[in-house]
Amino acid sequence: MNLKAVVEDTDTRTGRIFNLAIQALIVLSLVSFCIETLPALSSISRKILYVIEAVTVAIFTVEYALRFYVADSRIRFVFSFYGLIDLFAILPFYISTGVDLRSIRVFRMLRLFRIFKLLRYGKAIQRFRDAFIDIKEELVVLFTATALAIYVASVGIYYFESAVQPDKFGSVFHCMWWAIVTLTTVGYGDAFPITLGGRLFTGLILVVGLGLIAVPSGLFASALAKADRD
Amino acid sequence: MNLKAVVEDTDTRTGRIFNLAIQALIVLSLVSFCIETLPALSSISRKILYVIEAVTVAIFTVEYALRFYVADSRIRFVFSFYGLIDLFAILPFYISTGVDLRSIRVFRMLRLFRIFKLLRYGKAIQRFRDAFIDIKEELVVLFTATALAIYVASVGIYYFESAVQPDKFGSVFHCMWWAIVTLTTVGYGDAFPITLGGRLFTGLILVVGLGLIAVPSGLFASALAKADRD
Amino acid sequence: MNLKAVVEDTDTRTGRIFNLAIQALIVLSLVSFCIETLPALSSISRKILYVIEAVTVAIFTVEYALRFYVADSRIRFVFSFYGLIDLFAILPFYISTGVDLRSIRVFRMLRLFRIFKLLRYGKAIQRFRDAFIDIKEELVVLFTATALAIYVASVGIYYFESAVQPDKFGSVFHCMWWAIVTLTTVGYGDAFPITLGGRLFTGLILVVGLGLIAVPSGLFASALAKADRD
Amino acid sequence: MNLKAVVEDTDTRTGRIFNLAIQALIVLSLVSFCIETLPALSSISRKILYVIEAVTVAIFTVEYALRFYVADSRIRFVFSFYGLIDLFAILPFYISTGVDLRSIRVFRMLRLFRIFKLLRYGKAIQRFRDAFIDIKEELVVLFTATALAIYVASVGIYYFESAVQPDKFGSVFHCMWWAIVTLTTVGYGDAFPITLGGRLFTGLILVVGLGLIAVPSGLFASALAKADRD
Repeated sequence: MNLKAVVEDTDTRTGRIFNLAIQALIVLSLVSFCIETLPALSSISRKILYVIEAVTVAIFTVEYALRFYVADSRIRFVFSFYGLIDLFAILPFYISTGVDLRSIRVFRMLRLFRIFKLLRYGKAIQRFRDAFIDIKEELVVLFTATALAIYVASVGIYYFESAVQPDKFGSVFHCMWWAIVTLTTVGYGDAFPITLGGRLFTGLILVVGLGLIAVPSGLFASALAKADRD
Repeated sequence: MNLKAVVEDTDTRTGRIFNLAIQALIVLSLVSFCIETLPALSSISRKILYVIEAVTVAIFTVEYALRFYVADSRIRFVFSFYGLIDLFAILPFYISTGVDLRSIRVFRMLRLFRIFKLLRYGKAIQRFRDAFIDIKEELVVLFTATALAIYVASVGIYYFESAVQPDKFGSVFHCMWWAIVTLTTVGYGDAFPITLGGRLFTGLILVVGLGLIAVPSGLFASALAKADRD
Repeated sequence: MNLKAVVEDTDTRTGRIFNLAIQALIVLSLVSFCIETLPALSSISRKILYVIEAVTVAIFTVEYALRFYVADSRIRFVFSFYGLIDLFAILPFYISTGVDLRSIRVFRMLRLFRIFKLLRYGKAIQRFRDAFIDIKEELVVLFTATALAIYVASVGIYYFESAVQPDKFGSVFHCMWWAIVTLTTVGYGDAFPITLGGRLFTGLILVVGLGLIAVPSGLFASALAKADRD
Repeated sequence: MNLKAVVEDTDTRTGRIFNLAIQALIVLSLVSFCIETLPALSSISRKILYVIEAVTVAIFTVEYALRFYVADSRIRFVFSFYGLIDLFAILPFYISTGVDLRSIRVFRMLRLFRIFKLLRYGKAIQRFRDAFIDIKEELVVLFTATALAIYVASVGIYYFESAVQPDKFGSVFHCMWWAIVTLTTVGYGDAFPITLGGRLFTGLILVVGLGLIAVPSGLFASALAKADRD
């Protein structure tokens, strides 16, 4: 029987159906995970969610066994990137039922790794990888520059605002939160300078630092357009 | 009589005048719709607005009848994209006068479809369509990545903030609202992390996720510049 | 005497000095205008500011007279773009001293037109003009699309939030303020949706509308880079 | 002994190790500086931080002496950009121990100059420099335009809001703070227009001014992509 073609191949009809079904199941498990966190959930809802969880994990376990069975090199599959992610997606369920039930929640965070499974089945992603590799050096420089800008902004605002607003700008670490929220232009409004010096400094930092933070996306878009042309 | 040239053709002088007049009427009806929602509106104002509404709908009805009359294939016109929109623009008025008057408001939302009529008369739009088709695949990947970023951000912040701020980060769905408002850098300030872990996580998510959200517009601008050159 | 070379020519040494001095004076008058608005200003400060104002206007008047005198066609200078701006920059001062002193403030707004004088002396501006002309059509489409996005967002949020928050989303016009503040990602936090429907709608509008608003700058940057290459 | 190769050369193995160690030490001193600002710090922590400070400054002093010793022209090294920065990085420590201990904090701000040391060892930075030089003229025009936009926005909002909100829009300088926070889309929410005129004006300014502020980063990204290609 051509089991390998069904599990690993996404070009054949049965292979596509199998893999699309797995993807749908991953989305279902991600959604049910969100619903579980709703505060006022009836006992019956909790039971339904548990059944969904058990069934999806069961199917994922069968899928993992199949992938393990059809792999050319089984040992390499287990320690491959996707092999480990597939394992992490089902392991928390079995561990949690054996030990404490409360600790499940933390382990379930690993469920998110199933997302990478979804990303596996995409061809345009190659172009993103090419664009990313193309500008890797520039991104490193830009992220360093951004980190330095946040540091300078934090230290600067600390000198201007720490005396007047000790609860919000009490240490350079407090100021870093402000610097990130400001330089990304999120601006929640939970912390902002009120002294004249602090406001002048913020204006200066914004004019210089803002451009810096917007450059990576522009550069990536440019590299992506180039990868598309090639 | 060359009625077809007047209604469908935007190259002849009379055709241009006819279609520009219809466009002006659409804008008028959209503005009057806004004015209707003003809370303290005098009885006389309401009457004037109703007259405007009745007159525009009457003209749109005549226009629809003309378009139906001059169409090469009448059945195809009725079920075409613009044929349906033209119908939806006038239908709510007639339905509402027959049934309940309160329910008009909800149906009037459909009036907005008249906007597409305005968009019909533009030539540069073709270039936008070309640019859009050019980067369709990349947009799908980017929107998937954005959706995943919002999911990861929501689950992550839930673990850090749900215990401390149960009213604002009570479930992953509550956290999704925060994630969207934060990653789009709107930052209303109605919900923001206050724990150290939550703030570190937000900083991390912002540095990674922000670039992601800005890439589509950069890519589209690049594709549009390319479509302009060709 | 070669007065024309001094006033109109920015290539000769004296011409450069004259025009740079005028520019410095414009900046001075703009700064002094800001200082005048400070609430607690001593009587002596007010007098100094008035002297600065009187002196700068006197110099600008002499400058205007000189430009008028050396112009090839005096009638064309008076009605030229910069001729009118030069006149508007000095006229309010003379009018205000004749009539009421309170009304000066409103007229002084025109002083801002002096800024265009500053812009006159720049060569790189031509490239900006080329880039702007290059993408004019696209900008018209994008601004129309943005206006429509704001309209759709305003009407949509009105249906979701007007009943719950009548003070903030009381009419479509109120909602437009929210739509502009949200779609530009400013997000003051004075108005934000609190209903589930309103939040879902906001998320949807943000994902679609945000890209739209960022495209013009990307397109302009691209056209500017192209103008630089040519 | 080939001391010069170790200190100045980053191509040899020992040279790389030496310079990487110095970089690690700079990061350590920057982090310890942040920790020092934490409000509730135990006496023992303060002592540890002082020891770290003393040791790093001692190593930096030795490093400075070495760089001075191996320099081709010692007088040129002392007055070179990096020579001065290296001196500023260690000087405050020695000055502070001689005079008052409180005033250290202000001088320590100079420590941040050590960051430039980090930037010295990067090759991709050359491309950033090329891109920056390539668009220098455009950046000057854009920063002037941004400054004018902020000025116009400030004066405009002053006329609309100063009478209604004198505490937040009391002078054009107060309005400038609002203009910077708004045009950079940070939008803390500490000051926003509440009059109809002020809101219409803000909407107008945002549509025009926002694009302006986003252009520099797009332009820089474009120039960087070009520098990468060359």
